[in-house]
Amino acid sequence: MISKIKEKNPLIHNITNYVTVNGVANALISLGASPVMADSEFEVSDIVSISNALVINIGTLNERVLKSMIKAGIRANELGLPVVLDPVGAGASLYRTQAVFELLKSIKFSLIRLNISEAKTLINQTSTTNGVDASQSDLNADLSSAISVAKNISEKFNTITVISGKSDIITNGKNIAICDNGHEMMSKITGSGCMLSAVLGAFMCVGDTFETAVHGVSAYGICGERAFDKLGDNGNATYATLLIDELAFVSDDDVVKFGKIRHI
Amino acid sequence: MISKIKEKNPLIHNITNYVTVNGVANALISLGASPVMADSEFEVSDIVSISNALVINIGTLNERVLKSMIKAGIRANELGLPVVLDPVGAGASLYRTQAVFELLKSIKFSLIRLNISEAKTLINQTSTTNGVDASQSDLNADLSSAISVAKNISEKFNTITVISGKSDIITNGKNIAICDNGHEMMSKITGSGCMLSAVLGAFMCVGDTFETAVHGVSAYGICGERAFDKLGDNGNATYATLLIDELAFVSDDDVVKFGKIRHI
Amino acid sequence: MISKIKEKNPLIHNITNYVTVNGVANALISLGASPVMADSEFEVSDIVSISNALVINIGTLNERVLKSMIKAGIRANELGLPVVLDPVGAGASLYRTQAVFELLKSIKFSLIRLNISEAKTLINQTSTTNGVDASQSDLNADLSSAISVAKNISEKFNTITVISGKSDIITNGKNIAICDNGHEMMSKITGSGCMLSAVLGAFMCVGDTFETAVHGVSAYGICGERAFDKLGDNGNATYATLLIDELAFVSDDDVVKFGKIRHI
Repeated sequence: MISKIKEKNPLIHNITNYVTVNGVANALISLGASPVMADSEFEVSDIVSISNALVINIGTLNERVLKSMIKAGIRANELGLPVVLDPVGAGASLYRTQAVFELLKSIKFSLIRLNISEAKTLINQTSTTNGVDASQSDLNADLSSAISVAKNISEKFNTITVISGKSDIITNGKNIAICDNGHEMMSKITGSGCMLSAVLGAFMCVGDTFETAVHGVSAYGICGERAFDKLGDNGNATYATLLIDELAFVSDDDVVKFGKIRHI
Repeated sequence: MISKIKEKNPLIHNITNYVTVNGVANALISLGASPVMADSEFEVSDIVSISNALVINIGTLNERVLKSMIKAGIRANELGLPVVLDPVGAGASLYRTQAVFELLKSIKFSLIRLNISEAKTLINQTSTTNGVDASQSDLNADLSSAISVAKNISEKFNTITVISGKSDIITNGKNIAICDNGHEMMSKITGSGCMLSAVLGAFMCVGDTFETAVHGVSAYGICGERAFDKLGDNGNATYATLLIDELAFVSDDDVVKFGKIRHI
Repeated sequence: MISKIKEKNPLIHNITNYVTVNGVANALISLGASPVMADSEFEVSDIVSISNALVINIGTLNERVLKSMIKAGIRANELGLPVVLDPVGAGASLYRTQAVFELLKSIKFSLIRLNISEAKTLINQTSTTNGVDASQSDLNADLSSAISVAKNISEKFNTITVISGKSDIITNGKNIAICDNGHEMMSKITGSGCMLSAVLGAFMCVGDTFETAVHGVSAYGICGERAFDKLGDNGNATYATLLIDELAFVSDDDVVKFGKIRHI
């Protein structure tokens, strides 16, 4: 599937935050896709129309951009394009939570990628939050309850759900996979979640399925492992750079050989 | 105090510019804090309420965000949270200067970090400016006049003042420290000031005092020295990455051993 | 001319996108210029007035910023400052195309830097687009037709035109140069075009001429070659960092020795 991305070079329209946007763009290029960032309501319909997927990330949401997200998402649905949602910080403010539900009401998402605190917010469970990061109490919950949350999201919103964490959970409501690739350092940089969401947008362009999502999550996790192998005595900013670098090198064979995927 | 930051993992709400925001986020993570960036007027009150400090940086100011800054600052004051101001480019345009005075009128800041040209603007002294950098003529002024500017700011606005430069000045109006840690390369990257302001926001979470500010400025300067030691024949973009990396490694012991702090 | 930039340390006002803005700022510092980013309509006139050049980049355009671009450009023209345009994604949406023509109608540009798809849009030729990247079909066009496009832009808008590609084309409508410096990796990172546009803004401050533009394009290409030489087995994110680093080291002598410039 990675080879197909490189062959197809899909154009990924990102309406995203200004914190991690540069990494998101380079991650997509590294993988073999092309990024385009455009958030004016006057052009998102045009940009979606030439794109192969849309990725919506609410990391630094505001009224102007929310309007553009809805417009772009509706157009992408009309065109039958994959649409990915990263509901960054859902639950951290009433505004974000309401915006997420407005997006979910207006747009059919192919895939939603989030952390466990955001995930609990989406199914109206009480969650605590550490801003855009999952709270420690939510992270401490056992895997089976997190799987149940993921399944609920998939059922409620008819979507593939990816909950990132120590173990990543991928489900379409019926099939469930746990992926243990990745490295703790991924939680010590800004943007590792945002980049995965965008990368999964590229994967969705070569097959809008549960299997593709599992493959993508595992490939990204392998990159996280390899970036750590190369890190030496450097810190998180270097790690962020190396993580993006690795996306250019990871292959479908690597996922077969080094993927740590359990189907349950 | 660094160990306390790592223990407490404070959430730092940044309303900041889009130029250096990624470095600011990674610098906070590196140090052991958590960043959250949110600038919609519809959510800043909520985000402040779950945060441990607020950092306001006017690097790419506009009307929408200025409104959010004031709202967030007032809420942070109500909650008794530390609030840091980085008045980037004050004096470079009438708009920025007026905005800074509006912020200072509406919000009580725990700490203001700035360069000497911005500092002179805050006490209505004539200053020249090189945009967001201090002007050469202001930089050439002797240390004692810069100290006097810093003291004036602290007295006028009842705040800790940190003026960054070849020698950093820290004062609360009564106590004065000069810190000679740091490296010239810090002035050859974008964001070294913005990152220090955010880092000091994290330090304020473990003690809202002059001593904590001095400790933080020195720790950051030590990171700047060590980043240079590792730089080899690389240039400023690599240096920026290494500087953020070092924030993960610097310790309270390092400040005791390698701090170049003079109390005067 | 590079030595003159380092001597003069020109202040470059950028109204630019939030994707590549950090690299743009560090690239300018690396070269010896100072960046200032400011996009509020309430301050752009002030900021232009203290600057040595203005660079307008429409990568993430919106209504608020477009107004500021026009205001800043008109003021820069009044002051006789060099103004550079990077019409990112012209042709990718009607909104961007119309915005570019509005900018071209309101402002006299010293230099326009773009890719071949954007260039064809500017002279009303049919072009396809890959978002903010040139389309493969446009890239496959022969060099002579691309030169003709560049000449047309220079004649129509009375400007220096730089079309980036495998071979870069520089023309003022009369003189034409082809520059073969650079490396394929430059097309595998986000921001290499944006950074060149800003860098050329700095070059325009030391001589607003065809020759300066050729020199600048070649110097930047040499940086691209050297960044690749240092890349080892790393990928695109590391490459982006190294490219900015090299801008600090490239000299006028290097351009004389290693420039691959053909005048035709």
